[in-house]
Amino acid sequence: MTQPLIRRLCIIGVGLIGGSLARALREAGEVGEVIGCGRGEANLQAAVRLGVIDRYVTDPAQAVTGADVVLLAVPLGAMAAVLRVIAPHLEPDAVLTDAGSAKGSVVADVERVYGYIPPHFVPGHPIAGTEQSGVEASFATLFQRRRVILTPLAETSAIAHQLIRRMWEITGAEVVDMGVRHHDAVLAATSHLPHMLAYTLVDTLARLDDRAEIFRYAAGGFRDFTRIASSDPQMWHDICVANRDQLLEMIALFVADLEHLAKSIRADDHDVVLATFQRAKRARDNLYLD
Amino acid sequence: MTQPLIRRLCIIGVGLIGGSLARALREAGEVGEVIGCGRGEANLQAAVRLGVIDRYVTDPAQAVTGADVVLLAVPLGAMAAVLRVIAPHLEPDAVLTDAGSAKGSVVADVERVYGYIPPHFVPGHPIAGTEQSGVEASFATLFQRRRVILTPLAETSAIAHQLIRRMWEITGAEVVDMGVRHHDAVLAATSHLPHMLAYTLVDTLARLDDRAEIFRYAAGGFRDFTRIASSDPQMWHDICVANRDQLLEMIALFVADLEHLAKSIRADDHDVVLATFQRAKRARDNLYLD
Repeated sequence: MTQPLIRRLCIIGVGLIGGSLARALREAGEVGEVIGCGRGEANLQAAVRLGVIDRYVTDPAQAVTGADVVLLAVPLGAMAAVLRVIAPHLEPDAVLTDAGSAKGSVVADVERVYGYIPPHFVPGHPIAGTEQSGVEASFATLFQRRRVILTPLAETSAIAHQLIRRMWEITGAEVVDMGVRHHDAVLAATSHLPHMLAYTLVDTLARLDDRAEIFRYAAGGFRDFTRIASSDPQMWHDICVANRDQLLEMIALFVADLEHLAKSIRADDHDVVLATFQRAKRARDNLYLD
Repeated sequence: MTQPLIRRLCIIGVGLIGGSLARALREAGEVGEVIGCGRGEANLQAAVRLGVIDRYVTDPAQAVTGADVVLLAVPLGAMAAVLRVIAPHLEPDAVLTDAGSAKGSVVADVERVYGYIPPHFVPGHPIAGTEQSGVEASFATLFQRRRVILTPLAETSAIAHQLIRRMWEITGAEVVDMGVRHHDAVLAATSHLPHMLAYTLVDTLARLDDRAEIFRYAAGGFRDFTRIASSDPQMWHDICVANRDQLLEMIALFVADLEHLAKSIRADDHDVVLATFQRAKRARDNLYLD
C-alpha cells in the first residue's frame, strides 16, 4: 500500500472549504487522519458525525501537534489570533497553508506573528465558495474544475509549495500561482466588488417603503443576481477589511462607470448606452455559454 | 366543442415572449389561429417551422386585420411606430395589449397615436424574461407561476381587461393589476437597476487592462451575478429611455448607498459594514430558499 500524501491534516475552521477538502482527500485515500479544530463544538461534532474529520480538538495549540499539514480556513479577521496560538506548536517540518479570500492580509499577519515569512507557509485561495457555509454544505467534488490560486513568496520552500499544489490537485482543482497583490486585485474585481453590489442592492431595496411589494415582483433574473447577498456577513466584513484599498479602488471605478451610464441615459445619448450594453453582452457571452 | 378564448391572435414581434404565449395558448386549445408579424422574415419562417404561429404577414396593417387580440411584443422604442401603422386597421372590437417592460411610455405612445386612451387597450407586462431572446428560446411553460402585471387605465373596458387577464391565466401565470407609475417604480427597483449594475460591472471589468486574466478567475457566483448582462442590448436601451426618470432615481439611491458602504469600509466602521451585510442577507434569505 502506498503512503497517503498527508499523514495527518489539521483543519482549523471546519466549514464549507475545510470540510470539502477533507472529504476530497479522504475519498482519494490521500490523507491518513484529519483533525478538526474550531470555535463551535456542535459544528465539530457534526463534522465527526458526517465523517468529514476523524476527531476534533478545541485548543488550536494541541490540534496542530503532530500534523504535517495545517489548513487555516477561518475568517480573515481571525487569522492573526489563530496564528499567534499555533505558531509555537507547529511541528518543525509542518506545512502551513490557508484558504483566505484575500492574500495580502494573511501574509502580513504571518509576518507579524513570526517576525519573518516562514518557508513552510504557502498562502492559498480555492475559488470555489458558494453562498452556503458550514460543514453540512461541504462535498467532495466542490473543487473539481475550480481554480485554486497559490501565492508563494520568495521565502516559500519549493517542497512546501509542491505539497500544497499536489493537495489541491487531488481534489480536481486547477492550481495556479500568482503574486499576492495581483491576486488581491483580480479578486477585488471579480468577487469582492460583485458581493458589495449584491449586498447593497438588496439592502437598498429592503429599505424602500414598499419593500414587501417590491420584492414580490422581482423577476427570475433577480434571484440569480442577488444569490451572493446570502453569503456569510462576517466573512465578507473581514474580506472588506483585509482587501480594503483594492476593493475601494474597484468600487470607485464602478461608481464612475455607473454614473457615466446614468449621465448618458439622462442626456439621451443613445449611442453610449447601447454601446455599453453591447460591449458588456459580448464580454459576458464570450465568458460563458450558459 | 367549445370555442377557444381567442379566435385569431396577432403577435407583432414573435420572440421569446410572443412565441411562448402562442405556444401556451395553442397547447391549451384556447386560440384558433396565430398570425405572426415582425421585421425579420427568417425569424417568422422559423416561428412557422417551430409551429409557434400558423402563418405570418410582414405588413403590420394587414397582420392585424381580422384579429380579435393583438399583442405588441416589440422593443419599447418601436411601439409608437407600430401603433401608428396598425391603429387605423384594428377591427372595431379587437383588444390591443402589449408586453413592454415599462408601462408609462407605452401608454403615452398609445395616447399620442390615438389622441385618447382607447377602451380596447390593456397595457401588460409578463415578468418572465430570461437573458435569452428570439422565438427559438420560446417555450409553452415560460409563464407558469410567473407574474403578469396589467396596468388598466380608467378608460379601459372591463371586457377587454377580463379577456387579457384570462389569456395570461391560461398560460399558468398569476395576473395582478397595478397602477402605471407604481409598476414602473417597482420594475425600476427590481429589474431595471439590477440590469444596469450587471452591464456596468461586466463593462468595467472588460475595460481593465488585464481583462482576459481577470475574467479567468471569476468564481461561480460571478456567472449567476452577470447572467443578465447577456440580455438584449437594444431592448434594454429602450427600457432606459422609456423608464428614464424612475431608473435614474434608483441608480442615484443605489450609488448613495454604495458610497456610504465604501465610506464605512474606509473608516473601519465595522458595525455599519457588518449590519449592512446582515440586513441584506436576511432580506435575501427571506425571499428565496434556493
